[in-house]
Amino acid sequence: MDYVKQAQLAKKDSAWLSALDTKARNSALMKIAEALESSKDVIFKANKEDLDNAVKAKIPAPILARLKFDESKLSSCVQGIRDLIGLEDPLNKILLKRQLDEGLVLTKITCAIGVIGVIFESRPDALVQISSLCVKSGNCAILKGGSEAAHTNRILFDTIHHAGVEAGLPEHFLTLVEDRAGIAELLGCHDYIDLIIPRGSNEFVQYIMANSKIPVMGHADGICHIYVAEDADIDMALKIIEDSKTQYAAACNAVETLLVNEQIYDNLVSRITDKIELREGDFNKEYLDWIMTVKKVSGLQEAIESINANGSHHTDCIITTDAAKADEFMRYVDSAGVYWNCSTRFADGFRYGFGAEVGISTGKLHARGPVGLDGLVTYKYKLAGNGQIVGDYASGKKSFHFKDID
Amino acid sequence: MDYVKQAQLAKKDSAWLSALDTKARNSALMKIAEALESSKDVIFKANKEDLDNAVKAKIPAPILARLKFDESKLSSCVQGIRDLIGLEDPLNKILLKRQLDEGLVLTKITCAIGVIGVIFESRPDALVQISSLCVKSGNCAILKGGSEAAHTNRILFDTIHHAGVEAGLPEHFLTLVEDRAGIAELLGCHDYIDLIIPRGSNEFVQYIMANSKIPVMGHADGICHIYVAEDADIDMALKIIEDSKTQYAAACNAVETLLVNEQIYDNLVSRITDKIELREGDFNKEYLDWIMTVKKVSGLQEAIESINANGSHHTDCIITTDAAKADEFMRYVDSAGVYWNCSTRFADGFRYGFGAEVGISTGKLHARGPVGLDGLVTYKYKLAGNGQIVGDYASGKKSFHFKDID
Repeated sequence: MDYVKQAQLAKKDSAWLSALDTKARNSALMKIAEALESSKDVIFKANKEDLDNAVKAKIPAPILARLKFDESKLSSCVQGIRDLIGLEDPLNKILLKRQLDEGLVLTKITCAIGVIGVIFESRPDALVQISSLCVKSGNCAILKGGSEAAHTNRILFDTIHHAGVEAGLPEHFLTLVEDRAGIAELLGCHDYIDLIIPRGSNEFVQYIMANSKIPVMGHADGICHIYVAEDADIDMALKIIEDSKTQYAAACNAVETLLVNEQIYDNLVSRITDKIELREGDFNKEYLDWIMTVKKVSGLQEAIESINANGSHHTDCIITTDAAKADEFMRYVDSAGVYWNCSTRFADGFRYGFGAEVGISTGKLHARGPVGLDGLVTYKYKLAGNGQIVGDYASGKKSFHFKDID
Repeated sequence: MDYVKQAQLAKKDSAWLSALDTKARNSALMKIAEALESSKDVIFKANKEDLDNAVKAKIPAPILARLKFDESKLSSCVQGIRDLIGLEDPLNKILLKRQLDEGLVLTKITCAIGVIGVIFESRPDALVQISSLCVKSGNCAILKGGSEAAHTNRILFDTIHHAGVEAGLPEHFLTLVEDRAGIAELLGCHDYIDLIIPRGSNEFVQYIMANSKIPVMGHADGICHIYVAEDADIDMALKIIEDSKTQYAAACNAVETLLVNEQIYDNLVSRITDKIELREGDFNKEYLDWIMTVKKVSGLQEAIESINANGSHHTDCIITTDAAKADEFMRYVDSAGVYWNCSTRFADGFRYGFGAEVGISTGKLHARGPVGLDGLVTYKYKLAGNGQIVGDYASGKKSFHFKDID
């Protein structure tokens, strides 16, 4: 398939999708949820085909578990869509309304970004989640899923696409890319795709950043730190370290490097659970396992400098009983999340109460940290007048009076 | 000079600069303003050297005018700094404060971006303006100015840098790049430079976008449109067209393409002033001169599609007496500025009342349209607890209650 052409068509449709009102987008989501429920037999059948192939190809068990799309995953997807319908519309929010002069009113208002390309791994539920987030936020989506989920993705896409179009969404609100070669085509589409969200391995995210002019939202690494100050409550520190490392070690917000003040180093380190393997020297290693780098530091300043130099600007925590130290740490550490006396694992859109998570961004522009629906919108300026020209203001005949309106 | 090393040092200093409070940054700006005033003789002398060289090199008169840095430019620069001091601090604004659970408080707060690279043309006043905007917003700046202004830029840089460091800013708050080869070094510094703002020709901006992984904020093209609907007030249309094209034709917000409804085409086009040359066919040409492409369209939908396909998403205007048409135009046109019955030349940070303008962005992420001080900040999430771990929430022992705090 010609994906450049598909992207161009999506771009054209994106203006119409984003202009649909809240009710139209929510009612399309409702139809999509219903269609998924009523198509469950064919969806499960397609998923069985993928699972059978995966077993034949001796795909490892954790990937099989992610690939499986059963009754429980379907109902959680459908519930996710119903929750999304209940969330506030991220579009058409007025951010500023200002009279520049008599009869000349400026309005800064949120709007959809346009076309979003999402590349994700084996989980078919990601397809449902991303499609519905994009419908809610008025963006066209171009999706590339993992090849091992090809049959499931196809039927999910067909179901969602058919229901969406029936409900009045434009034809190209959703596009499925089914071959790997399509990725390279998409990366060249900077005139048609406004944002790429990659959900995959670090290498993959790096590859995309290096090979496209399209802005990328996401994170390549999650090298989170905990610094334990000399005045820390040691029991609290041990509890937070264990949770941050072992509660789900494969997550990007799991801690990878532990910095400990030299005054308490021996005491603290000797009491860390044996379940966690401690290593020295690797200051920018993302283990994603029950392994952690540990380093003795002389104090707060060394800790801050080490984190800013070696971390990935994702989430970093200080454990201290001294509020002044915590404040300094949180001001000087240049990360999306700066934490005091709590687990790094809290860095997550659901735990922040965003209701829906688009992903986590370690970039600093547009969206940073856990990204909710807000990360899928931008804004435009509307200016309405009755014949005003700039010449009158340049000549001094008229002047601006800037009056903000509620 | 080793600019990679310089960028690394700026990165390190950026954490300290951004943690300075409002008073420290404003008082540094005050010292910088005073230093510029008291160094004016050496500044004018250096500028004379640049001007003499430029005359010898037969540099065209408009560039000479931009290069000149005299009493009036100095005092306008100094006034600009004093105005900036009076503006609200863009840092440490609380965007969200939410109790996730008892004793676990999330704060979303604005902070500096870090290190900003700015590449600009011959105007030495741009150096003063950019440096002061970066100090106000707590960002380190790396500046590359035009070579024809080398002497003026050097003395302005020395004056600002010396005054800033005296006032307590970190050594690397400002870096001057003095050779063209330095640009290529900077473009590779994605670990140290967070944002590049190019102020130059379209080709130059395109070159930077294609040759760096660092995000770029700016605009390559300004292909603005005016669509005149069949029900427009023709006199108003003529006045707005003339202002949008001729008030300052070299600006990016000048109109380049005029779309006219077929029902009024002959009447309107015959009355456009002879001073403007009308051409056909070139739908994405930025003339920057008193020349304009004109096209007959069948109605609103064709106008919207033509603008979305051929425009540069900068600023586009409809002239109509029909509010419903205006509303449709402003919703469907995918541009930073969507205007109704006023000149495209209003697309400007000062005219929007931002008080200071960083530039105009045609990108959709982070900042769009005229960008004020807000465009130079990002945010971070602070999370303060008293030992909370995620395990307790995963097991159901505890649960979130999400309560926003004023």
